Amino acid sequence: MADIHYHDYLQLDKILNAQHPESAGKNISAHDEMLFIIIHQAYELWFKQLHHEADSISAIMRKPAVNDNSPELQTVVHRLHRMAVILRVLIHQIDILETMTPMDFLDFRDLLRPASGFQSWQFKLLEAKLGLKFEYRHGKEYYTSQLRQEHIDLIKHAESQYSFLQLVNDWLERMPTAPPPPGKNLVKEQALPEESWEQFDFWTTYKQAYSTSLAEAEKNNLDAFDEVFFQQKETHYTLSAGANRAALFIMLYRGYPLLQLPFQLLNNLLEIDEQLSTWRHRHMNMVHRMIGTRIGTGGSSGKDYLKAAADKHYIFKEIAQLTSFLIERRRLPQLPKQVERKLGFNNE
Amino acid sequence: MADIHYHDYLQLDKILNAQHPESAGKNISAHDEMLFIIIHQAYELWFKQLHHEADSISAIMRKPAVNDNSPELQTVVHRLHRMAVILRVLIHQIDILETMTPMDFLDFRDLLRPASGFQSWQFKLLEAKLGLKFEYRHGKEYYTSQLRQEHIDLIKHAESQYSFLQLVNDWLERMPTAPPPPGKNLVKEQALPEESWEQFDFWTTYKQAYSTSLAEAEKNNLDAFDEVFFQQKETHYTLSAGANRAALFIMLYRGYPLLQLPFQLLNNLLEIDEQLSTWRHRHMNMVHRMIGTRIGTGGSSGKDYLKAAADKHYIFKEIAQLTSFLIERRRLPQLPKQVERKLGFNNE
Amino acid sequence: MADIHYHDYLQLDKILNAQHPESAGKNISAHDEMLFIIIHQAYELWFKQLHHEADSISAIMRKPAVNDNSPELQTVVHRLHRMAVILRVLIHQIDILETMTPMDFLDFRDLLRPASGFQSWQFKLLEAKLGLKFEYRHGKEYYTSQLRQEHIDLIKHAESQYSFLQLVNDWLERMPTAPPPPGKNLVKEQALPEESWEQFDFWTTYKQAYSTSLAEAEKNNLDAFDEVFFQQKETHYTLSAGANRAALFIMLYRGYPLLQLPFQLLNNLLEIDEQLSTWRHRHMNMVHRMIGTRIGTGGSSGKDYLKAAADKHYIFKEIAQLTSFLIERRRLPQLPKQVERKLGFNNE
Amino acid sequence: MADIHYHDYLQLDKILNAQHPESAGKNISAHDEMLFIIIHQAYELWFKQLHHEADSISAIMRKPAVNDNSPELQTVVHRLHRMAVILRVLIHQIDILETMTPMDFLDFRDLLRPASGFQSWQFKLLEAKLGLKFEYRHGKEYYTSQLRQEHIDLIKHAESQYSFLQLVNDWLERMPTAPPPPGKNLVKEQALPEESWEQFDFWTTYKQAYSTSLAEAEKNNLDAFDEVFFQQKETHYTLSAGANRAALFIMLYRGYPLLQLPFQLLNNLLEIDEQLSTWRHRHMNMVHRMIGTRIGTGGSSGKDYLKAAADKHYIFKEIAQLTSFLIERRRLPQLPKQVERKLGFNNE
Repeated sequence: MADIHYHDYLQLDKILNAQHPESAGKNISAHDEMLFIIIHQAYELWFKQLHHEADSISAIMRKPAVNDNSPELQTVVHRLHRMAVILRVLIHQIDILETMTPMDFLDFRDLLRPASGFQSWQFKLLEAKLGLKFEYRHGKEYYTSQLRQEHIDLIKHAESQYSFLQLVNDWLERMPTAPPPPGKNLVKEQALPEESWEQFDFWTTYKQAYSTSLAEAEKNNLDAFDEVFFQQKETHYTLSAGANRAALFIMLYRGYPLLQLPFQLLNNLLEIDEQLSTWRHRHMNMVHRMIGTRIGTGGSSGKDYLKAAADKHYIFKEIAQLTSFLIERRRLPQLPKQVERKLGFNNE
Repeated sequence: MADIHYHDYLQLDKILNAQHPESAGKNISAHDEMLFIIIHQAYELWFKQLHHEADSISAIMRKPAVNDNSPELQTVVHRLHRMAVILRVLIHQIDILETMTPMDFLDFRDLLRPASGFQSWQFKLLEAKLGLKFEYRHGKEYYTSQLRQEHIDLIKHAESQYSFLQLVNDWLERMPTAPPPPGKNLVKEQALPEESWEQFDFWTTYKQAYSTSLAEAEKNNLDAFDEVFFQQKETHYTLSAGANRAALFIMLYRGYPLLQLPFQLLNNLLEIDEQLSTWRHRHMNMVHRMIGTRIGTGGSSGKDYLKAAADKHYIFKEIAQLTSFLIERRRLPQLPKQVERKLGFNNE
Repeated sequence: MADIHYHDYLQLDKILNAQHPESAGKNISAHDEMLFIIIHQAYELWFKQLHHEADSISAIMRKPAVNDNSPELQTVVHRLHRMAVILRVLIHQIDILETMTPMDFLDFRDLLRPASGFQSWQFKLLEAKLGLKFEYRHGKEYYTSQLRQEHIDLIKHAESQYSFLQLVNDWLERMPTAPPPPGKNLVKEQALPEESWEQFDFWTTYKQAYSTSLAEAEKNNLDAFDEVFFQQKETHYTLSAGANRAALFIMLYRGYPLLQLPFQLLNNLLEIDEQLSTWRHRHMNMVHRMIGTRIGTGGSSGKDYLKAAADKHYIFKEIAQLTSFLIERRRLPQLPKQVERKLGFNNE
Repeated sequence: MADIHYHDYLQLDKILNAQHPESAGKNISAHDEMLFIIIHQAYELWFKQLHHEADSISAIMRKPAVNDNSPELQTVVHRLHRMAVILRVLIHQIDILETMTPMDFLDFRDLLRPASGFQSWQFKLLEAKLGLKFEYRHGKEYYTSQLRQEHIDLIKHAESQYSFLQLVNDWLERMPTAPPPPGKNLVKEQALPEESWEQFDFWTTYKQAYSTSLAEAEKNNLDAFDEVFFQQKETHYTLSAGANRAALFIMLYRGYPLLQLPFQLLNNLLEIDEQLSTWRHRHMNMVHRMIGTRIGTGGSSGKDYLKAAADKHYIFKEIAQLTSFLIERRRLPQLPKQVERKLGFNNE
């Protein structure tokens, strides 16, 4: 085996020779263009890593059944957590770009047109893989309007595939939880065997408890409850009623061993959405600070687009909203012994 | 002099005995209520410190003339910077509260009604002192609706006083910069003596250069230029046309010694606004994660109010927008020698 | 139920009136003394919260048997994680104190003697509760030399009790893992029933695999292996050989459901130690930057003491060192089917 | 001008195709090797940026005289600040690597030998440029022992050049401050014209005031005072007595306009040293957590080397120690009017 050297292993000849400021070629003094290049390269490197993680966890979740007795779910949870940690650093990294003042940026800004961060296909591809649907994109077609065909194709392909959120939906539907209330014509394959429930109609009981917990001004939450967990008259959902029921069940009874990792998984999705949200927010503020009401190098109206996207692009919002349907732990229905046993370890 | 002990000096008997969870008195198990109390107390301590800084810099800026040859301006810059550093930690602190899950919060949430973080008068008072005007408040009267009269009085008093932003306005108006263009009937007391300018009509020249720099789609920025720097037909401004001209001049020529600290001052205001903005954004996301669409303990609709406030409450936005009127450094009008001398040191 | 108001609930009259700068009483101008007081009060508030968490998890771990099928272990893991998150903010908070320059500190430093951060009994008590033994303290008696008797008593009491690390030791000893190698006269109560192992001598096999993995220069690690996992000729350990074996087993086979939370628990201990280490390091640098080689207000030689303590006070170092004894995942001994079943869920 | 596209401008074809895990070629499953590669590439990108900044400020400081009336000094201060901001992100980035567990690292660790982060020549080159002298390196020759000749040459060349710290020394010596005490045979070219001082023997007066400020246990600081500011019997200093006097004078009288930026410059050097120190510390802890007492892939004993380097490699320690020689602001000698005028603006 030939000796490996750090410099070659990391291909630093490539990495460290990939900075070619436009200003240099034009003999214009623009010290900060180097920063501008390097920070975007660093972002793209990390986006590649985020794809590496996202692809790996989708591959696991795409299996017909995630094996609860294997490390698979743990691996998914661990890598989602890593993605959140990476996103935190990416947010922090904005601090560096903010040391570039608007006047410093003007030194080279016009040289870049029409290049623009808006052409970062890796970020858009990541959103698509995770589950941001085309029809929820702010401005619809607009987001791919400046990309190359090869990159548009990658994104369109991802949108045509099962997203991570859809895989989560299917996994939730398979989770062993409570059967749907009798009379409701709902899939039940995800339920723990009915005999375990000993005739206990969990969902009717829970809905009753939830109803009691509502303040006067919150009473219409009860309609939302039915919509989300049973009817789904609207059609824009990614998560089915059954998946929603399983996710809520996990949040409520996360203390049982079998539900601990699933709870961490859901929680990590919310964490990632929150980091993405903060990233978009800070990015928007930074662009506003840099160019004010001028139009971006890519021709976008800058802040306005970013603001609309930031307000709208919550990928896992269907999970986030389930928080509205929790009740106090001390009012939770007690689960039948049989069910408790199924949610625990083999250690009797 | 009696010996001082750390424990007494910090009055730890008071500080460490000021946590009385409601759940304890009611024999309800709610481990996380302690966290909820302590984090809010930590926030309020830091708000007090922010007031300490804000009051001290307002006192300096309120003097008839800030002495450029004293450390006064440097002190203002330094303390604004400290305020931004504190705000960063306050943002980070949200991470701690987010380790409380919605179910953990439900354990004690109903016990607190109608208490609510919305009753933090110190934060609202800080906004008022810095320059958030009553008429810009989202929901107008609403923001004081749950406060005690004594705290409402403090805020109303602050709103009736000169805010820090108004003090900045007056200080900017006194800054020695270029005289207004001839024919415009504008105050000029802030200008460097006209003879220094050797007949050079800076603002007409600058407007010409700015006009040239605009892309086709940006041409209506020229009307905005006139509005902001000369006409101000609208009346909602805190910064006068003269103050805006001075602020832009500082941004453009920050390289001259006399303008270095003023530039840092303006920059720190933008930094503070950005930190406040991120704080509001993360606070909103956190509340949404915690209570979903349920109404807050204080009866607010939670996320919606916070979102509207976050979108609207940029205290220093008039300064931020000046970025739209910058031009490239290499196209800046050359200042007359006399002016350059006035902007420099005594060291010939 | 009487209405609760935020201001009373948080006892803000107490909290916000507990700042009495010495300089104010002496008519000395020292603007930054307020910061000095408030930051230390914020630290002490958070230390109180850390005690709240530490006490709660010790109470759980002190039970004769942590119930694997209850949320207990999950709660321990969650609160350890929260402690690490709090410590991160406490480290970040040093940034605020560093906005105080040495000259600003000198304005009031002499007024405080002999008060000193060294008199923070809550921090020392926390170290003791977690498991820093008296005999490992740098300077031994010194660390309590400036405390009041009542606080010394608290610390001495904590040192006389079972520390969290000792509770971890006992819990590890009860963990179901592999039986010790035959012939070694070792406790085995923690092992999975011997019949599950089907005669498989795990530890002898593992030691062989470990030996093979060592580079020439690492060969004496094998003696360390025997010492740590079997002999323990030295007597200063908190973790027994059996506990060490269980901890290593957890690290190696964390993929099995039953070992997932135990792995997270161990990992969180290392995370806490690392945060504490960074806290001590940054605190030391900050003190050095503030007072140089002057002696501290408490009479300590400042940096030197802090440096020695930072180098020495790793509370969970016995767990950290186990990393030295891992081998590659693909060379791990395959566990017997019976054992695998015991480490998994009831879901056949 | 041809249109520029983001993807080409950033050379993403190069950047995103420079990751070739060793494990992939050997068909070994090691998911985290990608992370390992990407994080090191991100580090090296940022090191390049740090060099870009360091080179640019050295070029400015190398001029025979920094023009106080130009933006030059401001530029130096600004870029030093940026370097500190970058270092903060690099420290934060360690969080990402810590999501890789020791077992995950073992999956590919042996494939990398003898490559090692120890072969990062850019970091060592940066230390050399800033002012870490060869004779202060821990282990002397050792630090270049694994580098390629071309990279050793770069470092040796940098060590043979004037470092940034030496440039700071020369700049300090030229700063207009107080003349040395009469009778001491010291360079005085940096002093403000003697007539400005009106016979006021600043340094003798200051030494007297300093002496009074010392506690009994600090009395030998007076010898240190003489050594640092007048005698320098030892020879290992980079900063001359004159430079030290100027630096102390700046710290003491930073309130005067002419000294404001110089103070910020010195403060930023301490900030950079502190960030580097924290980086080394966390790096050391991270390596320890990852490999324990095993030897590193590069054959180093890992933690021990890193610990010794972290303890020793404070580049700007001669500036940091000046803190020991400050006195309270209210006891500072009043400067003669003439001197005050020279330290201020032209605005009478």
